[in-house]
Order: sequence, then C-alpha cells, then structure tokens
Amino acid sequence: MAAAAYKMISIPEAQDIVLSHTRPLGAVTVGLAGALGRVLAEEVRAPDSLPPFPASIKDGYAVVAADGVGEFPVVGESRAGHLDQLPVAPGSVAYITTGAPVPPGADAVVQVEDTEKLPDGEGSQRRVRICKAAKAGQDIRPVGSDITEGDTVLQAGERVGVAEMGILATVGAVSLKVHATPRVAVLSTGDEVVDPSTAPLGPGQIRDANRAMLLAAAAKAGAEVVDMGVARDTEGHLEGCLAAAIEQRVDVLITSGGVSMGDRDLIKPLLAREGTIHFGRVRMKPGKPLTFATLTLPQQGGRQMLVFGLPGNPVSSFVCFHLVVLPALRKMGGWAEPQLRRVAARLAVDIKLDPERPEYHRCTLQWGPPPLGSTPALKAAVAEAAAAQDPLHAPPPPPPHEASAHGAAGLGSMELWAVSTGNQISSRLLSARSANALLEIPCASGVIKAGSLVSALLIDDLGGMPVPPGGVPVTPGF
Amino acid sequence: MAAAAYKMISIPEAQDIVLSHTRPLGAVTVGLAGALGRVLAEEVRAPDSLPPFPASIKDGYAVVAADGVGEFPVVGESRAGHLDQLPVAPGSVAYITTGAPVPPGADAVVQVEDTEKLPDGEGSQRRVRICKAAKAGQDIRPVGSDITEGDTVLQAGERVGVAEMGILATVGAVSLKVHATPRVAVLSTGDEVVDPSTAPLGPGQIRDANRAMLLAAAAKAGAEVVDMGVARDTEGHLEGCLAAAIEQRVDVLITSGGVSMGDRDLIKPLLAREGTIHFGRVRMKPGKPLTFATLTLPQQGGRQMLVFGLPGNPVSSFVCFHLVVLPALRKMGGWAEPQLRRVAARLAVDIKLDPERPEYHRCTLQWGPPPLGSTPALKAAVAEAAAAQDPLHAPPPPPPHEASAHGAAGLGSMELWAVSTGNQISSRLLSARSANALLEIPCASGVIKAGSLVSALLIDDLGGMPVPPGGVPVTPGF
Repeated sequence: MAAAAYKMISIPEAQDIVLSHTRPLGAVTVGLAGALGRVLAEEVRAPDSLPPFPASIKDGYAVVAADGVGEFPVVGESRAGHLDQLPVAPGSVAYITTGAPVPPGADAVVQVEDTEKLPDGEGSQRRVRICKAAKAGQDIRPVGSDITEGDTVLQAGERVGVAEMGILATVGAVSLKVHATPRVAVLSTGDEVVDPSTAPLGPGQIRDANRAMLLAAAAKAGAEVVDMGVARDTEGHLEGCLAAAIEQRVDVLITSGGVSMGDRDLIKPLLAREGTIHFGRVRMKPGKPLTFATLTLPQQGGRQMLVFGLPGNPVSSFVCFHLVVLPALRKMGGWAEPQLRRVAARLAVDIKLDPERPEYHRCTLQWGPPPLGSTPALKAAVAEAAAAQDPLHAPPPPPPHEASAHGAAGLGSMELWAVSTGNQISSRLLSARSANALLEIPCASGVIKAGSLVSALLIDDLGGMPVPPGGVPVTPGF
Repeated sequence: MAAAAYKMISIPEAQDIVLSHTRPLGAVTVGLAGALGRVLAEEVRAPDSLPPFPASIKDGYAVVAADGVGEFPVVGESRAGHLDQLPVAPGSVAYITTGAPVPPGADAVVQVEDTEKLPDGEGSQRRVRICKAAKAGQDIRPVGSDITEGDTVLQAGERVGVAEMGILATVGAVSLKVHATPRVAVLSTGDEVVDPSTAPLGPGQIRDANRAMLLAAAAKAGAEVVDMGVARDTEGHLEGCLAAAIEQRVDVLITSGGVSMGDRDLIKPLLAREGTIHFGRVRMKPGKPLTFATLTLPQQGGRQMLVFGLPGNPVSSFVCFHLVVLPALRKMGGWAEPQLRRVAARLAVDIKLDPERPEYHRCTLQWGPPPLGSTPALKAAVAEAAAAQDPLHAPPPPPPHEASAHGAAGLGSMELWAVSTGNQISSRLLSARSANALLEIPCASGVIKAGSLVSALLIDDLGGMPVPPGGVPVTPGF
C-alpha cells in the first residue's frame, strides 16, 4: 500500500488506537530500593498499627493529667527505644522523649518548656515542677492514630514517589509487586544518518539526533532501553534490524525516518508485510507520516510487539514520541491515566495559524506576570486580544506587571504563560530546547494573538521552569 | 548550647543561609549517554552547519523554478546519503527524497503529490509531469538554516533534557563538561528505629521510614547516595557514623532525628563540636528543630561538608528535605535557579490556620474545574470567599463546573486547585502521599477558606497530577 493510501486520521483517533492496543505489563517483585517510580500492582496493607504504642509528641514529662500543676517526683523515664516498666502513679511523673511510649498510668505529656527542674529530693529522688496543667491525652499519639493495623496504605495503581517510599518502609513492605517496565528498542534509519561521533561529516551526511534523544526519552519514562543503531535504506538491512529487535524481546520498537513518500521509505511496506499497520498518516504538524503497527510473534508464544514508525525530522520524532509513544509506555508501566496532562496557558506572542493541520507548538511555560522579554509588544497585544470578541481570544487579561507584586491580587494576577521556542520548522530541534509543553494550536487561517488562552500538554517537569524576575508572590501574610 | 538556645529564624532566612554556604560542584566530563539530567558546565557550539547542504524538505523533484509546469525528463536522483553529481539543467528535473541534497542547478523542490509519473521516454528516459509551478527556494532548507556553524546551541548552565540530548548528538557533542552531582549520605538516628524488614516489631520499636524516603529523594534529585544506616542514641556511636560519612567523602550528610529538646538529642551538640551550626530552629510547621551545619575537614584538604539535621518525624523530614536540602543539591549540581518553583493555587477545602507558625500544608494540585469530590461544600465556600473582602480571600471564583466544558470560557475557568492530603500531623506520612506541592499557609488565627488563592511550592512533576473527570478543554477549534 502506498504511503498516500493510508487514511489521514486525527491525533485523538491515533492516541485511542495506540492505547487500545496497549496492555499494562504483568507484575514483577522488587525490593523496596527498586520501587521508586514504579506503579504498584497490588495494594499495600499495614501489618501493625502506627504508633504501635501510645507515643509522646514532645520531650517532657508523662503525667497524670488530674494532678495539675505542682512539684512532683520523677519516678522513671521513657526514652524512645528503651522501655521503663515503672508505672506512673498519681502524684508522680516520668521523664519522656519524643516518640517514646507513654508509661502505664500516665495520660498526658507536659512539654519540657512548661516545666522547671528542681533540686533532687530525699535519696537523690529527681524532682520537677509542672508549670502548666495538662488535659488528658495531651501530646500523646494514641495507638494506630497515624496508621491502623490492616489499613490499606497504598492502592494498586499508585505510583511510588518519595513519600510513598517512606510509607512502604514504615509498614515493612520490603518486597513489592509492581508493574514491569517496558523494554524499548530504538532504531534510526537512513543512509545519510551517521553516528554522533562522526567528524567531519562526509558529503551528504548528517548526525543521528533521534536515537540519543529517543533513548533518553524512553529511559526518562522508566523504560529499559536497547540501542539498535542505524538501519540502511535497503529492505534486507531493515528486515535484519527488525528481526534483531524481536530477538531482543522488546515490548516496543521505535523507529525514526523512512515513513514518508520517498521510494526508499521502507518502514511502512515492511510493517505491512510483518504485522498490521493501524495508521500511517496523522493530521498533525509536525508528524504527519506517523505510523503505528503491531506485530504478533508466533515464534515467541504469540506475544505482541508495538512498533512506532516516527518521522525522521527530529522535531517530528520528539513531538510524536510525547503524543503517542509516551502514553503507551506509561500504560504498559501501569499508569491508570497515561495521557499527557493538559493545562491552560496564555500566549506570550502571536502565533501564525496553519490552515492545513493543527499544530503542536513547542513552548516554555512559566508561572508569573507576562514574561518581561516580550512585555511592550505583549501589553498591546494582550489588550487587543481582550477587546476582541473572537472566541479564540481570552477573557480579560491580568493587570499589568507593576501592579501585581503583592497580596491576593498579586497572586491572582499571576498565571501560566507560554513562551514560544521560536521557528517551528520540523528539522529545527532547537525549537524543542527548554520546551516543557506542547501548545495545541488550531488549524485555521490568520493569527492567534498574544494574550489568548490555549491548551498546553505538559512534556516536562514544571519544577524546572523559568523563574520570572521578582518571583511569584506568596500567600498574603505568609 | 541547649537546643532552645538556637535563635528561631524564618524559612527564607534558613534557605538563604543554606544557599550561601553551597557552591556548585566542579565540572566532570561525561559521554553523551550520561548527560541526561545534568547541567552543562560549558557552552556547546556547532562545529558545522545544519543542514550541511541545501536539503529537500519533501519527497519529490528538484526543479528549476523558472521552468514552471510541464513535462520533464528525470535526469538523476538525489537520495539522502547518496550524492548524484548530475546537475539539473533548465528543462530537466531530478528525483529527490526528504533530507537529500538539492543537486546543483536546481533551485526548488516540487513535492511528489504535485507531480504525475509519465511513461518512460526515448532510451528509457524517465519522465514526470510537474503539475504545480514552484517558487525559487520552495521546500529547500538552505545550508545552516537550522544551525549555523559556530553557533552556541546550548549555554553553560542549561540542563540536558530529552530535546537537548538530540541537539548534542546533532552537533557531535559526544564528550561533555557537566557539573558533578553531589554525593549524599543519609543517616537515621534513634534506639527505637529499626530496619523496615523488621517484623514483628519489638516493644517500643518503629520502622525506619526516613532513610528509604531520603535516599529516594536525593537519588531523584540526581545525587549519588550512600546509605549510612541507623545511629544509636550514644555520643560514641553517632560520632562513629559521622566519621564514616566523612570517610565516604560525601558532599552532604542528611540525618534525621535527634534534633529536638530531649536529653539524648545528640545531633546538635555533636555538630557544634565538630563544625559550625548556622541555625538550629526554624519558624515552620512542620520542621521546627531543623538544623544546618558545615564541617571543614582539614584531613581532606580543608574541604567543606554540609550537614542537614532533619527532625525525626517523617513528614518534618519530608518537608525540610524539599525546602532546604533539595535547593542545595540542585545548586551543587549546577542549577542557576535552585529554589522550588512557586505557583498560585485555589484551595479546595477550608484550612485551619496555626497561630504560632506558618505551615507547609501538603496537597495534590490538579488543573481543572473545582474538584468534584468536594463540590457541594466547595461551591458555597467559594461563593463566600468571593463575597468576603478579606485580603486572604481571592478574586471572584471561576464559573461553576457545568458551564465550563467547552470554548475559551471553558479554558479560562480551569485553574490549579489544591486538594489537601488530610490530617497534617507531622508523624502521619500519609499526609505526603500523592502530594505534589506544599501550600504556604500563613501563621494566623481562624480559617483560610476554600476558594482562596494560596501560593504553592512544586515538589513533584505535575505530569502525573490527577485528571479531572471530563478532562481539561482544548483550545477552541483544535
């Protein structure tokens, strides 16, 4: 089937098709240290309560609350990890440290700041003055107040982050069932494509940007990656590379290049022979020749392998990876909601619309006032956009930068701004430099104005986004 | 010096002190595959132009634009990676594939979709009909149009993400100077603290949540981590553990526990003897006993080691790590803006204020309409907050959920909502489960109402935040 014969479908259709052919991988058992970033394949329950004993919240004295203020003998001490079995009878107290078990008989803790050391009494009996009466239960964490024995502390499907590592350790979950992570092979194609170490370049050669980029992208998504090198533009070599990827028992093969209209674009014909192509053209800019196929492998027990044929232009490759490959890798790894997260952002510059295809415009999102770099032009544009009744254009813009330094109004005037990465031609990978989002720009004629609200898909952690000059205001009174 | 003797300082003061004692680590050389996530220590320039030759943007025919439409002999072909030296003279064309060099003489490319194959002419001469006239330069990327030889493609100080890996590969930067990553040791303290694998727990014992959590947090920040185990509550054992950390030549030691008011809280006295304590109490909830010291090590050439004494309660430890340790690790790793990123978020629930200390309330941020789980109560609260003139309370809230499914108004009515993780007691690590931000809640009496805007510090990637039912609307027309 010729490339042009593939029906052009929309990106949501393409994403649905990919996810409908993607299954979460089975469970594997890992130790606690290997759990970070993984998705739990079964719930985790607490085998015991936390605290396992009534525990002091403060350093101070365990008391009988009804005793009130006064001078008391210190009849023992309870330190974390050291149990002193002496009960505290009315009229006496025990020294206690934070986290230590409250001795039998005591029903409150008075913090050391509300006490006063006294000279020892008869027979070197330690004594203390309680200066502030305690209420029963004061500064004591009852048994199970943080976690009750048998509680589900983490659900199947939850991802293990930093806090979850602590929660797992606390309940003694040192062996865990988590979803396997996908094994992903990356193959570049093209006779002109040479290793990045090549210098100087021979005539007609370019260095392979896609392989390093896609290997990094898959690894960042938690996949185990296999570098398959570069396939030459012959059927035989390409077939050999596909066979090698199968031999490596990868769940996913990502190729780049060889999917457009040229007579040596051999990926689609090969995949059509060896498996099923589910789509071969997508209405998107960049990335139109994006191809997706599944291979059923009788020689490997009939298991399925996904193949993503990404376009050779590095930006197309970058965009297609995030839009269709990443959600598939996440779903394999157990994510319940594998799609990219969508937010609304305000454009910092005008963007020219493409009348033929919706565009994924790379941008850097930042939270703050209108970005200063473009402020003069932007202010006018923002005002104009606000005045326009065009549905593409946003509701009234935030007040100008100067007015927004402090207070709730200040916080309210900050928002997410989208700064374009510049010339968006699909060969120019610099347009993905520092990009943390893809703007969803409609297919239409004309321009979408600075100040307009557009939807943006997050492709990188906003924890590293640019900081506006002067920063973002804090909660009033903080 | 007794613990109470340490002056209570604010968190911004504490953060300034820590960063003023933190220096970016020196440069190390890594291969391209090791560059992901690192910060460049020197700029990267392009040794050659990209494309290195005038390159076709399409599969089609290289033509002389002035020839216009008509039937032409195909005198040769230029495929990516294969140079055909035949020049294209007026009245002839050459077949060309995407990315291939445009042959001498040709000045435009006509895509294959705008051509028609003809039967071969005399002597099997291939022929084609050009159906659409080309403008000079059409579908050709001039030499250097993506990158010009000598251009700085990445600056010193830039972090290497997925796109940057591709950019580095493209310019042949296979050996790179990047900032070293910090080496971080993590030590728990306390006689009651036992390994997470302990089951059942002995009397008075609790499992060590902090070590697994802090090791994961440091590793996630890119640090190389060293597990120092658990120090017993004796001066000798603790000193031994400190000596072992020094022996490991770590840049940073993170301890947890042993910094409050108890008589076995030995961390502060030890650090005061061995180095300089810069602060020992911070006005924050949780985390008040947070301690920071520097040690100068004559036995290791006078190098400096940072020590963070985090409180033993796991939530305090979690919060203090993000607020003061993480920025220090980032600065060491070369981040120019190491502080947590601040955004504004709207409260989904009322939060009771603490009259004694500003609070870092753990929450899960999500973009969308008001979170559904709390909608009935929230709607009333939002309306009330909007009506109030209290500066803590926000400008008019977004329109209700039902009205916001589509259009620019829909996009504009979506915002960042902060859903509390529940009971915030500092022993309850479940309050950090799924938390992706710390809300900055002022020290005051009363309640801060649902619907109010508060500042929030990002502590996890929003790429995994909860998705609201129905999702977030896209740009109108997309």
